[in-house]
Amino acid sequence: MASAQTRLIRFEDLKDFCRRAYEAAGVLAGEAAIVAELLARADLRGVASHGVMRLPIYIERLEKDYVRKKCQLTTLRQKGATAFLQAHGSMGHVVSQRAMRLAMELAQTHGIGWVTVKDSGHFGVTGLFPMMALEEDLIGYVCSNSAPMMAPFGGKSRIMGNNPLSYAFPADQRLPVVVDFSCTVVASGRLILARKKGESIPLGWAVDKDGHPTSDPFAGYEGGGSLAPVGRHKGYGLALAHEILSAVLGGGKWTQSIKSLYEKDDSGIQGTCHSFLALDPDCFVGRAEFKQAMDQYIETVKDSGTAEGVAEIFLPGEIEARTEERCLVQGVPLAEATAQDLEALAVRLGLRLRFA
Amino acid sequence: MASAQTRLIRFEDLKDFCRRAYEAAGVLAGEAAIVAELLARADLRGVASHGVMRLPIYIERLEKDYVRKKCQLTTLRQKGATAFLQAHGSMGHVVSQRAMRLAMELAQTHGIGWVTVKDSGHFGVTGLFPMMALEEDLIGYVCSNSAPMMAPFGGKSRIMGNNPLSYAFPADQRLPVVVDFSCTVVASGRLILARKKGESIPLGWAVDKDGHPTSDPFAGYEGGGSLAPVGRHKGYGLALAHEILSAVLGGGKWTQSIKSLYEKDDSGIQGTCHSFLALDPDCFVGRAEFKQAMDQYIETVKDSGTAEGVAEIFLPGEIEARTEERCLVQGVPLAEATAQDLEALAVRLGLRLRFA
Repeated sequence: MASAQTRLIRFEDLKDFCRRAYEAAGVLAGEAAIVAELLARADLRGVASHGVMRLPIYIERLEKDYVRKKCQLTTLRQKGATAFLQAHGSMGHVVSQRAMRLAMELAQTHGIGWVTVKDSGHFGVTGLFPMMALEEDLIGYVCSNSAPMMAPFGGKSRIMGNNPLSYAFPADQRLPVVVDFSCTVVASGRLILARKKGESIPLGWAVDKDGHPTSDPFAGYEGGGSLAPVGRHKGYGLALAHEILSAVLGGGKWTQSIKSLYEKDDSGIQGTCHSFLALDPDCFVGRAEFKQAMDQYIETVKDSGTAEGVAEIFLPGEIEARTEERCLVQGVPLAEATAQDLEALAVRLGLRLRFA
Repeated sequence: MASAQTRLIRFEDLKDFCRRAYEAAGVLAGEAAIVAELLARADLRGVASHGVMRLPIYIERLEKDYVRKKCQLTTLRQKGATAFLQAHGSMGHVVSQRAMRLAMELAQTHGIGWVTVKDSGHFGVTGLFPMMALEEDLIGYVCSNSAPMMAPFGGKSRIMGNNPLSYAFPADQRLPVVVDFSCTVVASGRLILARKKGESIPLGWAVDKDGHPTSDPFAGYEGGGSLAPVGRHKGYGLALAHEILSAVLGGGKWTQSIKSLYEKDDSGIQGTCHSFLALDPDCFVGRAEFKQAMDQYIETVKDSGTAEGVAEIFLPGEIEARTEERCLVQGVPLAEATAQDLEALAVRLGLRLRFA
């Protein structure tokens, strides 16, 4: 919802602006439309951290040739239900949309499809790719490595990523269940925000560059520290698994040699690696039966008693879906700083940007 | 290591005792050998909570016909790289060993294999099944639902399981990486132990039956409370995903209707559901290349600096593998209470039990 610090924009206008910005940076119309939809949809679903806030840096990276303007995605190996793709430093959003589509095609034929991609780049909101599987009543999954921000459990060096995973499960009348999280206790943005506000952070969120638990948000991240894995050795293990399932399996760049979006990178290959899975419920209980059972399962969870002080139990993805529904009608709220950044970008690229 | 409160037993003797106990309960030799190996190996690897400590209850359940003595595992559907199996209330250990084997066969043909099983039972240590894939240089994965012990995030009803997952990744000269954890902050055994010792538990481990955070270990579990999901909404989301990928996908029993090992259950079907995945690195970077890259990746993590007060960074599964190596030579330590339970079982079944 818009407040003193946000400005509203219609979803279609936001998407259209993103598309034209990509086109102005030399991206073909079809690919520009894919990224624009994904970026605007992130904000529509309330995931502003991975939405149009990133548009200026994405455009800058295209202009500097840090990222390939036209998606090049070649098949290195294809066997049975699997495919292994090389993305040559193309935009992560476009690469991932195509790789997930391929996993779905494989699943239609083989019951399951697994696609691993190397040499891709930042792909935004993890959950939007497995959600593509929902259109065909398939289960979708993705995992990825990322830029360095975490130390190994017991370590002090920032050599691991927060390596997200996401699952999307179709339901019938109920909203789909979309699990989407990364393997740190909190995102780096929370520490940057706390530092800006002059606030301390709880012990357990991060360690400083010497591996000491810290309540200083600067020491915990921007000053060379590392975010802590969620659930201690559990988040550490999961983050390792996702790195292995993407970068090690693909022979791609490990997290520690991946530069963040905000670093100079003349290599032309940010190098993030991802793996995508699609699974067909028709090979098990059946597609229709699965969706109906999902409805029942969701209801059982939602209708179980709430803890004191809790109004409602949410399934993963439910809050984002409700936000999407509301913002389609009321408009998408952008933080004032983001709105100003987009306005500056519009001026620079000679584009029109219209708020609601 | 043996202490005043433990007794040592040779691994082969422990395994042999388990096998003969199963045979005495009417299990065929081949299947008895499978479960015996898995149970004794749990203790060998230091995972006593899921090892021979459970032998007496497993035997009792067979004697009471709560569990099928001869494994019956039928194929409900088979398409491409997937299989859907019905276990008819057979022993989870035997079922899972066969299901994992099938997933590996499918992966050899299709690059990946996915097997979902319904109507199985308690299978012990999750990680031992994906570890089977290591023998063929494949990646293994399993997830499962379990008996109820957790409330949904924001809820107060014990309707979810701790729904474990495990990955096993082969390496070359290095130990394989075996990620194996469940989705609660701590296992229920930790609360039972604290209650026995009269200790309180940290806030955040559990909620009482009304959903209030509690430091009383009895209120948090045995008194009707629920264990907390690890990482709050993250562990909740992962536990849901594992329930959906096993029980909902298989049309089997959801966690909330699964009885624990220690409850009367005349149905003859405990009903746990599991899913198994095997993935062939030859479809990606290559088997040999993957194992070599694993070695390098493991070394990078191990050789990164340790936090102050930490002697060494461990990869998941490393401590268990070292324990296994040591206890193969020195003997497997059993808690005195477990040793006495096994002695009583030996007397009852007319078997010989020899400690080291």
